[in-house]
Amino acid sequence: MPVNPERFRATFDALTRAGATPAGGLNRPALSELHLEAREAFRMLALKHGLDFRVDEAGNHSAVLPCGRPDAPTLLIGSHLDSVPNGGRFDGTLGIAAALEVVFALRETGKPRTVTLEAIDFTDEEGTWVSLMGSRAAAGLLIEDDLQSPRGHPEAFQEALGRAGLTRAGILRASRAGEPLAGYLELHIEQGSRLVDTGKDIGVVTGMVGIWMYRVTFHGRADHAGTSVMTDRLDAAQGAATFCLAVRRTVLERFPDCVANVGRMTFAPGAFNIVPESVTTYMELRNQDPDRAQELEDALRAEAARSADLFGLGLDFVFQESVRPAAMDEETCHALEDAANRLDLSHRRLPSLAGHDAQSMARLCPAGLIFVPSVGGYSHSPREYTRWRDCLQGAETLLGAAGALAGMG
Amino acid sequence: MPVNPERFRATFDALTRAGATPAGGLNRPALSELHLEAREAFRMLALKHGLDFRVDEAGNHSAVLPCGRPDAPTLLIGSHLDSVPNGGRFDGTLGIAAALEVVFALRETGKPRTVTLEAIDFTDEEGTWVSLMGSRAAAGLLIEDDLQSPRGHPEAFQEALGRAGLTRAGILRASRAGEPLAGYLELHIEQGSRLVDTGKDIGVVTGMVGIWMYRVTFHGRADHAGTSVMTDRLDAAQGAATFCLAVRRTVLERFPDCVANVGRMTFAPGAFNIVPESVTTYMELRNQDPDRAQELEDALRAEAARSADLFGLGLDFVFQESVRPAAMDEETCHALEDAANRLDLSHRRLPSLAGHDAQSMARLCPAGLIFVPSVGGYSHSPREYTRWRDCLQGAETLLGAAGALAGMG
Repeated sequence: MPVNPERFRATFDALTRAGATPAGGLNRPALSELHLEAREAFRMLALKHGLDFRVDEAGNHSAVLPCGRPDAPTLLIGSHLDSVPNGGRFDGTLGIAAALEVVFALRETGKPRTVTLEAIDFTDEEGTWVSLMGSRAAAGLLIEDDLQSPRGHPEAFQEALGRAGLTRAGILRASRAGEPLAGYLELHIEQGSRLVDTGKDIGVVTGMVGIWMYRVTFHGRADHAGTSVMTDRLDAAQGAATFCLAVRRTVLERFPDCVANVGRMTFAPGAFNIVPESVTTYMELRNQDPDRAQELEDALRAEAARSADLFGLGLDFVFQESVRPAAMDEETCHALEDAANRLDLSHRRLPSLAGHDAQSMARLCPAGLIFVPSVGGYSHSPREYTRWRDCLQGAETLLGAAGALAGMG
Repeated sequence: MPVNPERFRATFDALTRAGATPAGGLNRPALSELHLEAREAFRMLALKHGLDFRVDEAGNHSAVLPCGRPDAPTLLIGSHLDSVPNGGRFDGTLGIAAALEVVFALRETGKPRTVTLEAIDFTDEEGTWVSLMGSRAAAGLLIEDDLQSPRGHPEAFQEALGRAGLTRAGILRASRAGEPLAGYLELHIEQGSRLVDTGKDIGVVTGMVGIWMYRVTFHGRADHAGTSVMTDRLDAAQGAATFCLAVRRTVLERFPDCVANVGRMTFAPGAFNIVPESVTTYMELRNQDPDRAQELEDALRAEAARSADLFGLGLDFVFQESVRPAAMDEETCHALEDAANRLDLSHRRLPSLAGHDAQSMARLCPAGLIFVPSVGGYSHSPREYTRWRDCLQGAETLLGAAGALAGMG
């Protein structure tokens, strides 16, 4: 029951055409034209290989191999085709190529099936609009509020939904809770260097860190940048710059077990010749322990207040959104380790520092996730790279575990 | 020969309708729909009052009162109807209302005229696209390069030009060098508090500071904000934030005779969960003395290099554009002071810390500029305010000087 390397490669190539960048990455933010083009490639692959094709009300795309029994549970194998702006080729897309190959390969065995096999591409894993939107919708974890405060402009979100034929009401109806599910499996690149550093082929993920996101706005006063006296200015940029430096310093000095990032600032009104009236910083922090994350949030709130006070500015420290930490299923972890052992691949357990669709699915059914090594640890960048040999070994491991969980091992 | 206060007020009101904001300001960046609407109000006023209406190839709008002699020189009186984003009501527009009123009032005297009178509204004084574009074009100071690197996106600039029926080639043909010009007069709000602080009615401007603008970009590496180790990141935001603070500190500590501003930063790719790959800061500095401005530029280049080195970043310190310092015409200053004296208004001489169309025109013909007091010194903000009594006194002074220069005193 091996992976077919040529077919797997052809699938991966077909799925990495839309949004390919000259630097070798992918640029297809969720629900953009290029993302929808990649999803169309997925649909064509499903039909070409004789699988049933379905789209749910959250836009999740599925290629389904029924087992013939209408009440049979479904084994889901998935990931995502969307990317961050100017991202890499392996993040998500490798998992979709592997999911399709697992379904193709299991069918080829000709063994009787007692579960339905479903390769699934979740909508907006990267959170262009709403983090893990498709998998959270499928797991019944999304609420109306999540859709009311998308990251982009609400009108742009509405337009993006329209482009994909989705509605807010439909997304909230997409839950698969109550449906018989055998489990969820995912293959993803590590996006870090722990596997490379320790020389392991496969990472079996124990759980994901939580992510907490904030919009921190400093309010000053718009003034003429020539005529207003420098010492009298209420320059919002000074507060935001001070805070941006404080975020990094606070984590390095007092929270080395956490990570944080200021990924964006927006200036209003935003002209050379106007003292900035308000500057919003977009900040996130991550840790496995919600109590520890709260301690870091408290420390950063204090730093923001100090940064504002220093320049006489007003402050809004607004919690935007969070992704809860999640644990993977122990039995599924064993199935993945057994599969790696059968293939003579080295493996180790490790937590994930990034969010993944598997963490939504863990709330719905037994879920497991494996990592394959990332050269240099780069991610969310065109420099992201995984050796093809490692991609193949990951797909083999995924196939082995899926076969075992489907009773076809 | 007095100003007609009701007519002057009606003119001001008609010119402050388009783009009026709830906060009492104006939002009509150059060549936006709202700016073009304001210019249409100017055209209607010109026609209603029986003046000739003209638009030149730089989009400058003129209301003209010919004197009957085809070879007569023209006395220009002008300012601008465009605003910064979310700006005030008096900046520019007060000068246009006063220019029209001066032409109306001089015609009413019935005295014989030896000069053509022209009220002129210059395009893009605020530099939404190109600083002082209209007046620099009229003065023959614009070159092709100035139009090749507009502040906004080149395609957005092209679109804006199209909206106003302008072309780059036409703008470069709009020079009035060679035309017989008697002079240029302008009334503007001070945009500072020197007149209020010293209790003077009228400021007679001796000259303008120069403005030097730069785009300073810090180059790091896009990485996943969860999985990449904080100490290994090349976070462009850290360099930009350090530089933003250094700009203010350098001016306050070592260049108290200068001003500088970081009015905007743009982040790429600009997402919560991606370490910023590059951040561009938009910075300007002002001083009357180009040598002193060069010293400040050198100091800020060194600060930018230090900020980049501190975080292992690359740096591009790019000069964008400058507006040269300019001196007003001494005889015209005297004419403005004489007019203020005849009206029993107190006055003082002062340099301008902001750029004005008068500095372009000073390269073409004798130019003069007066300021009226700004309450609180606020500018480029809806808080900008000038008492109506001061507006009237300014218009009276402008009228007196224009009458004298036109030989109708």
